[in-house]
Order: sequence, then C-alpha cells, then structure tokens
Amino acid sequence: MGSKYIVIEGLEGAGKTSAREWVVETLRAQGIDNMVFTREPGGTPLAEKLRALTLDINATGDEIVTEKAEVLMFYAARIQLVETVIKPALARGAWVIGDRHDLSTQAYQGGGRGIDSRLLQTLRDAVLGDFAPDLTLYLDVTPEVGLARARARGALDRIEQESLDFFNRTRERYLELAAADPRIVKIDATQPLADVRRDICETIVRWVKEHR
Amino acid sequence: MGSKYIVIEGLEGAGKTSAREWVVETLRAQGIDNMVFTREPGGTPLAEKLRALTLDINATGDEIVTEKAEVLMFYAARIQLVETVIKPALARGAWVIGDRHDLSTQAYQGGGRGIDSRLLQTLRDAVLGDFAPDLTLYLDVTPEVGLARARARGALDRIEQESLDFFNRTRERYLELAAADPRIVKIDATQPLADVRRDICETIVRWVKEHR
Repeated sequence: MGSKYIVIEGLEGAGKTSAREWVVETLRAQGIDNMVFTREPGGTPLAEKLRALTLDINATGDEIVTEKAEVLMFYAARIQLVETVIKPALARGAWVIGDRHDLSTQAYQGGGRGIDSRLLQTLRDAVLGDFAPDLTLYLDVTPEVGLARARARGALDRIEQESLDFFNRTRERYLELAAADPRIVKIDATQPLADVRRDICETIVRWVKEHR
Repeated sequence: MGSKYIVIEGLEGAGKTSAREWVVETLRAQGIDNMVFTREPGGTPLAEKLRALTLDINATGDEIVTEKAEVLMFYAARIQLVETVIKPALARGAWVIGDRHDLSTQAYQGGGRGIDSRLLQTLRDAVLGDFAPDLTLYLDVTPEVGLARARARGALDRIEQESLDFFNRTRERYLELAAADPRIVKIDATQPLADVRRDICETIVRWVKEHR
C-alpha cells in the first residue's frame, strides 16, 4: 500500500489532538508505522516564522495585516511545507498525518472572514495545483462546544478571540465543503469521546481496507 | 491634476536612486510637492519583516525557500504596501514614487528564475486586480554595467550574487514587458549620467504635461 496524506480538520476545541492519537494507533494496528506529522500554518522554520509573524504583527497593533497579505503568507507557509516536507515524506513511503491543511484556509478565511472564495480557489489552484490530502477527517462541533473546550485548555490566540458569528460562518463552510468532496469524512465530534474515538477508528479501518 | 503612482525599475546598478532624485526635482519644478516614497519588497513593518525573512533564511542555509513561497511572500508584502500605504496616499492626493513594484517580480522571478509566467500573472491579477503604476521608468543597463556599479557601491546581497545569465534573462523580460506596455518608458541608463538625467527629466515633463 502506497503512502497517504491524511489531514485532521475542525474548529478550535473540536478535538484534533486526541483524534490524531486515535488515527495513529489505528494505523499502527493496521501495520502502518512510518508516519510523519505536520501542523499548519507552520511545520518548517520558514513556515513557523510566517505563522509567528501574522500573530505578532496583529498582536502589537502597529499595523493591521490585510486579509490578502495574511492569505498569501498562509499559502507561502503551505507550499514551503508541501514541497520541503510533505511531498518528500510521501516519496520515501511515509504516511503524513496533518493537523490542518488547505481546508482551514477555505473555511476560516473564505467562510469566517468572507474573503472572496474565487480568490482563494485561484490561489489554491495556482499554488498547490492538484495536490490534496487523500483523506480528511473533519471533526464537526458547534462553536459553542468547541470554544468552551478551547477556553478550558488555556489561553486563546488571536483567531480564537473572533466572534461566535465568525466561527458559525467557518463551520458552515466546512460543512459545505465536506458535503461536496468524497475525500472529506465528517465526524460528529460533539458526541461522548468514546463514540468519537469509535467513529474515527472505524473510518480509518474502513478507508485503509478500501485503499489497500 | 490628480495624484499619480510613478515607479522606477531596473537591474541592480541601473541608477534607480539617482533617477528618483531627478524625478523628484522635476516634479517639484512642475509644482508637485506632495510626494510619498516606497521601496519594494518592503515599505511597511510587515513587508520589511517579510523582506528580511527571505534574505535571512536563504543566508543561514538551514532551509531553501522554495520559489513559490518566495513569490507568495513578495505578493504578501506588495499587497500590504499597496493597501496600507500606496492607495491611502493616492486617495489623499499625494504622488507616490516607488523604487520597484510588480514589474520586478515579473522580470526577476519570471525572467531570471524562470518561474511560469502564467503563475505570476495569475497571482498578480488575483492579488492586485487592475491596480498598476501610472508611469514606470525602466532604466535599461546591461548586467555587466549594472553589476560593476553595484559592486563599486559595496556588498552584494543574495540576489546580486546570481549569475550573469540570470541577469541577462531578467533584462530580456524587462525589455519585453516594457515594449508591450505604453505606461512603461525605457531609459537608456548606460549613457553618461548627464544624458540619463536629461532623458528622465524630459520624460517626466512631457508626461506631466500630457496628463495634466
């Protein structure tokens, strides 16, 4: 079985970190051990600096990062990660497990911030071409549930301080995009943890069987 | 007469700094005093940090910045400058005099590095829309002349250490783009300085008269 790129997506507090652990243990149980982990935005020295820059500049208040500049920085970080980490890992036979990828930009910037989705699609096509995850697990929670969990966990960063409306728009876009793409599987992440875990494990087992 | 955006372009050592002084004194002689100066990449706190990041990361050798990531960072810096500095200055009636703008990306990345020009045009159109300088002075020099001047001036940065072939390809693209766009005026910058100055001043006087 060839190497695959699996991405975990969802709002803050959806449970992406736990989901990753369950994905990893399920893959191991299937005999898949060679895994590489990524997170976005970030994952290379340049990409991490770009991530810090968007957060820092906005935090200092010296300058407001324009929406287009922010999106371009996300895509710069993303293509750097894809070309220097993800594609080389896949080429040498590793499975890549990603915490967020392009779907986050489409949902947060396109849905949440209302940036023209044609602009985002043009950028995605121009920058990434036909590169895309083989499977995306979208952990669906309401913003109320997700934000309560994120708050319980500690400090909120800039994006986590957005309004409930912002997260509702983001979730709507996630749901639209998940419904339109068979490579995205929606997981009901408001269920009790044991049920979320079961759904994720079953999804992975079934998917690996189908793609073996 | 409304505000205008004038850009000075050319290879390293073409004489952009002197050209800017001559443009400014000619505009002042025409009664135009309200001017704002920009340079690219850079010109805002975020844009300067992005400029430093591309130079630093490549200089440390920890990581090679991919071509697409570099281009996206240039466009992030450019749209930040356009939206937070250039457009507001034009809106309040100032003339903006720029040291480089999009033509540099088309010439250096498209011509010099050989990045797909359709990708660059797609990015330009998606990011900048129909925003463009009213007048660009392209100072044409051979790479031999330009680099000799740049070396005499002091240290060369990363891009200035590229091969002669790189600069020949960059110049070819500048010449092609200048020939195709009536808003770009080519100045023969290999002439004696007094003649370059005369050509620039005459171009500006004529252009201001035509656009009054």
